[in-house]
Amino acid sequence: MRKQILIATNNPGKVSELSELLAGSSIDLISLADRPGIEEVEETGTTFAANAELKAVAYALQTGCWALADDSGLEVMALGGRPGVLSARYGGDGTSFPEKIRLLLDEMADTKAVDRRGRFVCSIAFASPNGEILFTAEGVCDGVLAETPRGMGGFGYDPLFIPDGYDKTFAELSPSVKRAISHRAKAFQEIIPFLRDFEAVRLDPACSDA
Amino acid sequence: MRKQILIATNNPGKVSELSELLAGSSIDLISLADRPGIEEVEETGTTFAANAELKAVAYALQTGCWALADDSGLEVMALGGRPGVLSARYGGDGTSFPEKIRLLLDEMADTKAVDRRGRFVCSIAFASPNGEILFTAEGVCDGVLAETPRGMGGFGYDPLFIPDGYDKTFAELSPSVKRAISHRAKAFQEIIPFLRDFEAVRLDPACSDA
Repeated sequence: MRKQILIATNNPGKVSELSELLAGSSIDLISLADRPGIEEVEETGTTFAANAELKAVAYALQTGCWALADDSGLEVMALGGRPGVLSARYGGDGTSFPEKIRLLLDEMADTKAVDRRGRFVCSIAFASPNGEILFTAEGVCDGVLAETPRGMGGFGYDPLFIPDGYDKTFAELSPSVKRAISHRAKAFQEIIPFLRDFEAVRLDPACSDA
Repeated sequence: MRKQILIATNNPGKVSELSELLAGSSIDLISLADRPGIEEVEETGTTFAANAELKAVAYALQTGCWALADDSGLEVMALGGRPGVLSARYGGDGTSFPEKIRLLLDEMADTKAVDRRGRFVCSIAFASPNGEILFTAEGVCDGVLAETPRGMGGFGYDPLFIPDGYDKTFAELSPSVKRAISHRAKAFQEIIPFLRDFEAVRLDPACSDA
């Protein structure tokens, strides 16, 4: 019998990435797009882990589903770790990522810091239908920020981020390489053994219909 | 020939914990207490990783030593991840830890949140004498916050923190258990293989005298 987990995202890329990792299991992933009418949960936390947990709990309670949520972003060391949890909101709502990247480079130039290190962080949290957190993980990908954006792949800050051990940005690297080394891949890989065990014993066959 | 690394801390407990993990190596750890006159570096970052890196770089440049710095604290999910990087400053300078714990419990009660989850995080960073970051790691210990402080061991928020898989607080668990599962232990354990390799090939015998 197929079983369902709600992935608390509207990003189909995340769903397909996790689906691939769960290939061969009897778990079906559904996303927020499959459950219209769900109220969006605000990311009020000051850390990625707090945001992932609050979203997992809120979406699980709201839908009656087992829910997996994530929160991720870019920490720039010369900026004391900013934009961090505000990565998606950096520069204000409505600012495109090319604009955010330009703002970030300007802000880094202003600090005159020599250190160009940064890291992508992804926190995930898995909650039961009654809102209990059952699993959490965090993936980190360290690297440096390029002087100028490079590459057409990926999304967000990818054109700026050169992971340690490579000389290309996330937007220049092949999707298969990024999928192997990214912060999100690392976090997802940590939860896979848990989900495969969990699948067999406790997962309800399907979410209740909202 | 013995070699030296500056641990950017005044806490002798951290030095002895790391010394134990480096037993048998030719690395000597010295602390800030061994180098009087060093200017204290302010923790201006918004994340543990940023603070660890900025301290490692600043102390390395200031002393001419290979420098290892850490930053750690407690994230409370019901408080959106606070006090986080402000853990040591929570409640204002001069507030004792029993007072901070009381304030934290009061603040949690105010939120009426059912979720009592929290986590201790420790970020470490290792810098060369010219201020280049060569290694970073982060250790996380997940758990829940007790309703009231319990136990006499440890320090800081330990009497409040029950790590997952245990029913005792960090202040009730034996030091050997805490040393095996703590956030700091996890971060330190990650850097040990790096330091043991590093020792053989690149480490200068001793810091230059300040």
